[in-house]
Amino acid sequence: MLRKVALAEKLAGIHEHWSPKIAGELNGQHVKLVKVQGDFVWHHHETADELFLVLRGELTMHYREEGGPEQVLLIAPGEFVIVPRNMEHRPSAEHEVEILLFEPAGTLNTGNVTGPLTADPAALI
Amino acid sequence: MLRKVALAEKLAGIHEHWSPKIAGELNGQHVKLVKVQGDFVWHHHETADELFLVLRGELTMHYREEGGPEQVLLIAPGEFVIVPRNMEHRPSAEHEVEILLFEPAGTLNTGNVTGPLTADPAALI
Repeated sequence: MLRKVALAEKLAGIHEHWSPKIAGELNGQHVKLVKVQGDFVWHHHETADELFLVLRGELTMHYREEGGPEQVLLIAPGEFVIVPRNMEHRPSAEHEVEILLFEPAGTLNTGNVTGPLTADPAALI
Repeated sequence: MLRKVALAEKLAGIHEHWSPKIAGELNGQHVKLVKVQGDFVWHHHETADELFLVLRGELTMHYREEGGPEQVLLIAPGEFVIVPRNMEHRPSAEHEVEILLFEPAGTLNTGNVTGPLTADPAALI
């Protein structure tokens, strides 16, 4: 039987920041939901492009292009950005933001940098 | 430079029903936007799972599981469904619906059935 997923319902079950939860899987990719607030770490993904679709709040995406200076992009609800593989990036948010992520299954949230913010890439909601 | 995509802005440029337009590409997958109204054709995709995220309106997804009877799922804004490869399905909508699709690049909207509703799988917006 086909089952639908209600984003709001799934998001209501997320109580931790920076810890993406898998809401769907297709073609080897994961649809994840995450709540974020504060500053994340600089990182990149070697083999994964990553889509951030903002559902609520405003996300700030800091990024650097091949050794260039830091740049900043603000992403509002109903907007998405695709961060290509190998681009250094660091999301941040002054107030809580709800995001839908689309990325290859198994992608680590902290990419090449493991540390206290690294989350289980297989966590379901 | 990273560029963000505003869903509403892209959707405002779509004036045809059942004709998905590519709004983003990552990891061999396309993010597409489409407006639909009325009845689509029964079809399946042999090698593609397909995600339908409803942005506005209510989508009716008719589907059949391996020779079983027709079943129906209503999908409201903020809800998504993943139709797995090889499942026969037929979307329909009484009133206009705006949808975000995630699917492998190159996926034909009518899957195994080409006809007057078949759209260019490479159309950008």
